[in-house]
Amino acid sequence: MTIGLTTPQNLLAIEGIRLGVAAAGIRYPDRHDLLLIEIAEGSQCAAVFTKNAFCAAPVLVCREHLSKSAPRFLIINSGNANAGLGKSGMLAANQSCAAVAELMSCDAEAVLPFSTGVIGETFPTQTLINALPAAKEALLADNWLPAAEAIMTTDTIAKGISEQVSIDGKNITITGIAKGSGMIRPDMATMLAYIATDANVSSVVLDLALRQAVDDSFNRITVDGDTSTNDACLLLATGKAGNELITDSNAEQAKAFFAAVKKVAKHLSESIIRDAEGVTKLITIEVEQGRNEAECDAVAFTVAHSPLVKTAFFAGDPNWGRILAAVGRAGLDSLDVDSINIYLGDVCIVKQGGRDPAYTEEAGQAVMQQEMITVRISLARGEARTSVQTSDLSYDYVRINAEYRS
Amino acid sequence: MTIGLTTPQNLLAIEGIRLGVAAAGIRYPDRHDLLLIEIAEGSQCAAVFTKNAFCAAPVLVCREHLSKSAPRFLIINSGNANAGLGKSGMLAANQSCAAVAELMSCDAEAVLPFSTGVIGETFPTQTLINALPAAKEALLADNWLPAAEAIMTTDTIAKGISEQVSIDGKNITITGIAKGSGMIRPDMATMLAYIATDANVSSVVLDLALRQAVDDSFNRITVDGDTSTNDACLLLATGKAGNELITDSNAEQAKAFFAAVKKVAKHLSESIIRDAEGVTKLITIEVEQGRNEAECDAVAFTVAHSPLVKTAFFAGDPNWGRILAAVGRAGLDSLDVDSINIYLGDVCIVKQGGRDPAYTEEAGQAVMQQEMITVRISLARGEARTSVQTSDLSYDYVRINAEYRS
Repeated sequence: MTIGLTTPQNLLAIEGIRLGVAAAGIRYPDRHDLLLIEIAEGSQCAAVFTKNAFCAAPVLVCREHLSKSAPRFLIINSGNANAGLGKSGMLAANQSCAAVAELMSCDAEAVLPFSTGVIGETFPTQTLINALPAAKEALLADNWLPAAEAIMTTDTIAKGISEQVSIDGKNITITGIAKGSGMIRPDMATMLAYIATDANVSSVVLDLALRQAVDDSFNRITVDGDTSTNDACLLLATGKAGNELITDSNAEQAKAFFAAVKKVAKHLSESIIRDAEGVTKLITIEVEQGRNEAECDAVAFTVAHSPLVKTAFFAGDPNWGRILAAVGRAGLDSLDVDSINIYLGDVCIVKQGGRDPAYTEEAGQAVMQQEMITVRISLARGEARTSVQTSDLSYDYVRINAEYRS
Repeated sequence: MTIGLTTPQNLLAIEGIRLGVAAAGIRYPDRHDLLLIEIAEGSQCAAVFTKNAFCAAPVLVCREHLSKSAPRFLIINSGNANAGLGKSGMLAANQSCAAVAELMSCDAEAVLPFSTGVIGETFPTQTLINALPAAKEALLADNWLPAAEAIMTTDTIAKGISEQVSIDGKNITITGIAKGSGMIRPDMATMLAYIATDANVSSVVLDLALRQAVDDSFNRITVDGDTSTNDACLLLATGKAGNELITDSNAEQAKAFFAAVKKVAKHLSESIIRDAEGVTKLITIEVEQGRNEAECDAVAFTVAHSPLVKTAFFAGDPNWGRILAAVGRAGLDSLDVDSINIYLGDVCIVKQGGRDPAYTEEAGQAVMQQEMITVRISLARGEARTSVQTSDLSYDYVRINAEYRS
């Protein structure tokens, strides 16, 4: 199941971007698993990648190619992560880029490879290469939804959104797609997300827009605390909208652009939690009145990762003692537990470190029956606040992850 | 299910210790849920408690009483943790001690209270007090097994062991019991463990024996990463064995004593994992060749807490990519992933950061079919090594924790 997600309709084309999908048969029979994205010459690209020390071969190749050349093509496959394969993984990623370069007549360094799927299985390079002509044939500006579907793994629904904003009297369009459902604790970006815009924007502003948006979206979600080896998020700008170049010297335009990109990233990251493996509840953990954002994050992620908290949400049980125990083990220096308040939705459950005398099980139960629940934790020792989104821990989470390779 | 655990037989009496159990009806109908332990005058006591900032009322009272007096009685209940109740919890713990003191004619400060069970529910102080006379009536030296049973919550089997060691030609006996199955990531000691010996031992040596033993046992296990609010471990020494006082100046005797206490603690902590909520596999994570123990622990606990690693073990799936991804996100400074080797049992799965060319799925599967599995991770950057024990993540873990309050 998902929490209130439907297949995205009306994903808008971005002038200068074409997308083609194909069924290569990398792992899944009879479905699209290969996506080729063509980027118009002269476009800008910003990118963030996983901080996992074991990053996958395509991430290493992306970093190298981005340092040398502006990307003209992205080649993305699902079904195999090309991770943990040592030299053979690097060879596979480089051969894939070379094959795209030959087919599309560009430098191999202008091609960025991305993979998602099982870690540690031999990468079927030739299978991918064989499907490239079909993906090329399929290239169309209006292919964002098939693209979102082609990059899915344990996702149950495609994720995407378009936003429009007027800057300098020009209509700017931003369209983004993402995939991700498990191994989600992004530490830069989620599994894979591609956002493109026709805005004319400087590379500095583009980079900042991406980083700000990612910090506020993909870096604030967690399904299982497991940071992937393949996380990547790209923001492409073709400049075709014809607006005056957005630079860091025209603050108002940059601000409008930042806000629009953030809105897209926020929608995509929340979609990932709404389709988290085994999800039955969308849980937002807000931590406020902390000394700084780092300690608010420590509390929020400790609560969000607690298996006991997550199973209580699955059960619809307002077992707030588990939340309290998680706050207590978050490692905060000289935490005064007698000042802490905790709210479940609008219901105060913990007041000054103990059960609120006015709290009733019925009031807690009523909140727990909802599909979307906010836990608010007030630390009463500062002004900082953060929030993260997570899912519950259900039988289906175990089933999906116990069966995923079988 | 449990992994190779049977009800402990032949738990040996410790001269100077008597134990009495009763069915107070605190939460569970028709079972013993109250344990009174009498400690002979002149005994020594060492204790360690949870580091959770939200420690339960009985933990606070224990700390206060220990600072003022040697304990003569322990009063322990299961079914209600007396945690998260603010002032009313402190009142309940103090009233319980006062009632024991009155019944047994001692100071209230010579009574230590312990509670385990649900957090945040009103503590039924009078229900506990009403059952004290029955517990007093039942006091017997030979009651260690009923005692181990009375402190169980989600445990499916009682946990205990006795060890004997000869020191100075005197036979020293050590008997320990423990409870714990979920909310297990001890950060001093597990939920509750009581170890007693008839050894004549100085308080310094006793304290050191406990801390060394706990560091090597209860602090090296994790079920779900959730540190309890009530963790406590006590080591009592009655001195009745008649050996010459073991002090820090007779190293050989102290060493023999340390080893025996450690053996008991190790058995008890491993028993907790063998009876972990929903356990189907006992997993030992060994990390070696690290720069220091802290970084070995960071890797070991990150792997042990990974839901994806734990579900793969439940499935019996040698999905070593998940182990590798967990190692990569453990936060080690300048980790050279190309030097890392990972073994599943005796099978090398990752060699120099990539899949071992000699590895076969069949070899990995064969290890995964076993009930007890060792994962060994070589970091190739130092001499330090540590290990932790954990359980897998099964449907039953979710069931137990989704249903626990219902």
